[in-house]
Amino acid sequence: MPLVEELGERRVIEAILRRLDIMPGSPVPLGDDASAVDLGGGRLAVIKADMLVGKTDVPPGMTVRQAARKAVVMNVSDLVAKGARPVAVLASLGIPGRLTEGDVEEIATGLNEGAREYGAYVLGGDTNEASDLVISCAALGTCEEGRFMRRSGARPGDILAVTGSFGGAAAGLRILLENLPAPRGTRRPLVDAVLTPRARLREGLALSQTGAVTASIDSSDGLAWSLHELARASGVGFLVDTLPVAREAEVFAEAHGLDAAELALYGGEEYELVITVRPGGWEGVEDAMRRLGTPVTRVGRATGEPTVLLKKGDSVEPIEPRGWEHFKSSRRGN
Amino acid sequence: MPLVEELGERRVIEAILRRLDIMPGSPVPLGDDASAVDLGGGRLAVIKADMLVGKTDVPPGMTVRQAARKAVVMNVSDLVAKGARPVAVLASLGIPGRLTEGDVEEIATGLNEGAREYGAYVLGGDTNEASDLVISCAALGTCEEGRFMRRSGARPGDILAVTGSFGGAAAGLRILLENLPAPRGTRRPLVDAVLTPRARLREGLALSQTGAVTASIDSSDGLAWSLHELARASGVGFLVDTLPVAREAEVFAEAHGLDAAELALYGGEEYELVITVRPGGWEGVEDAMRRLGTPVTRVGRATGEPTVLLKKGDSVEPIEPRGWEHFKSSRRGN
Repeated sequence: MPLVEELGERRVIEAILRRLDIMPGSPVPLGDDASAVDLGGGRLAVIKADMLVGKTDVPPGMTVRQAARKAVVMNVSDLVAKGARPVAVLASLGIPGRLTEGDVEEIATGLNEGAREYGAYVLGGDTNEASDLVISCAALGTCEEGRFMRRSGARPGDILAVTGSFGGAAAGLRILLENLPAPRGTRRPLVDAVLTPRARLREGLALSQTGAVTASIDSSDGLAWSLHELARASGVGFLVDTLPVAREAEVFAEAHGLDAAELALYGGEEYELVITVRPGGWEGVEDAMRRLGTPVTRVGRATGEPTVLLKKGDSVEPIEPRGWEHFKSSRRGN
Repeated sequence: MPLVEELGERRVIEAILRRLDIMPGSPVPLGDDASAVDLGGGRLAVIKADMLVGKTDVPPGMTVRQAARKAVVMNVSDLVAKGARPVAVLASLGIPGRLTEGDVEEIATGLNEGAREYGAYVLGGDTNEASDLVISCAALGTCEEGRFMRRSGARPGDILAVTGSFGGAAAGLRILLENLPAPRGTRRPLVDAVLTPRARLREGLALSQTGAVTASIDSSDGLAWSLHELARASGVGFLVDTLPVAREAEVFAEAHGLDAAELALYGGEEYELVITVRPGGWEGVEDAMRRLGTPVTRVGRATGEPTVLLKKGDSVEPIEPRGWEHFKSSRRGN
């Protein structure tokens, strides 16, 4: 019988899903970014739980306050990627006995910040003694029934688009993990991208209101991984022709002889939205993002082939299903 | 600055609560068994998160499937103690790499069982690598607004009552932890009380419908601790004159020269309901429980003194605020 450490997270999740009964009439299939329950009256309760483990998810240089805030943002991001408005957060903590009372207060402050930035409140939780620092959050939001954005609605011909830019967190992680020097003016924004990630609340809500988005996911596991997840859930492929790389990530990549596209595709820990838009709906999406002052970039289109490809000049190359995968030390996806 | 391992769970929780903003108009104060969000239309979403940590919460002899089921039951019990009907469960897992794929399937089976027994479904979750086995569940339920049973509504003169009987899990734990022999016919029910605890779903729903319950809590942290929590939240005291001890726990206590009342009061890991009832409402409560075939016992009354006392013959003695408290190795309460 294989051990969990040999399986990789995908197979662990598959082992779990095999054993779960499916809720009849569930508005969202198991395995989407968040789950939903029909509240009647055209409304959904949207729920998400995601756990931060100190050992694997907290890089050097991140305070416990930042870690706690991030644990909330991870969950909020999944709600907003579905078009839900966050309302409440619960936090179950595993706290190593060697932390101080001040550390605990900082954790609570971070949880509170993460929730309040997105209009939600921390309403409860649980504390436990544990060897690892564990911050396990659950978030509750609400959404109009017709506005929930699944992973599974992309169709060949749809426009593929993303908010913001990519690679900043990956570059920031290299700075924190490998002590790489950063060119003048880039260290702060790159490190901030890791330590203080932001979820796209207003964008998620506005996008769901356009009615033009056919599928949506956040990019927390890396842009490449998110593209593969969208493709798999929708039964489409993607041809990507543009990669919006964060300017500081480009400068950083150049200084270190790194491939900026690699940072943008395989980084993760960024909370941008990756969406598909029905062909006639692009103008509405652009207008909505312009009103918010948020960059949105058309990066390619959905295809009928089961492949995720990057166009480079006249050639195409596969975008690999890589990212961070727990249980395996390789970076492979979540 | 004191370390968490010196603080005890109560002070850890206080440190957290100091830093949280309070949701305006929240239907339930922070610190009740579960939290609630107003959904409008006279309905509440009731949410709860509680984490099971292998190292501290899983006794020898408990399988991972039983542990997973229990992690769900812990959360369900808090919902039903408030009068809410469980709908959905999320489970975030910290899985040590040395577990097998079969262990993971067993965990999922246990989660599914715990949810399905109470009419809910596991709708999602998250998997992580961790040193400890961590099963962090969040449960969502719904409740009519006027039917939510808080901890804080007990008034002097109210009747104090409990469902079921106590001490079985405490005796079962002694069997599992200390390898104590059990008198004929008692081992199975006592050990089952620990390994397969049950939440009082139908009882919680029926009690909330009587409209006679002024305060409610489950007994998961021990009867003594629950009484102190109810007393503290309601600003009352209790005079207890009866302790319904499980028959097998009495036999076990006698065989080992233990105090059965001690097992019943300070055991924990039992999921009975501890309620107060307004003086005119007792008959309705008795009727409701009779219809379900569930024993309910009038065990005392709420008083105006800030004390929790046990009447023994002609004398009274204090019931101590003891139970299991994380972060301190003593058993002191949660």
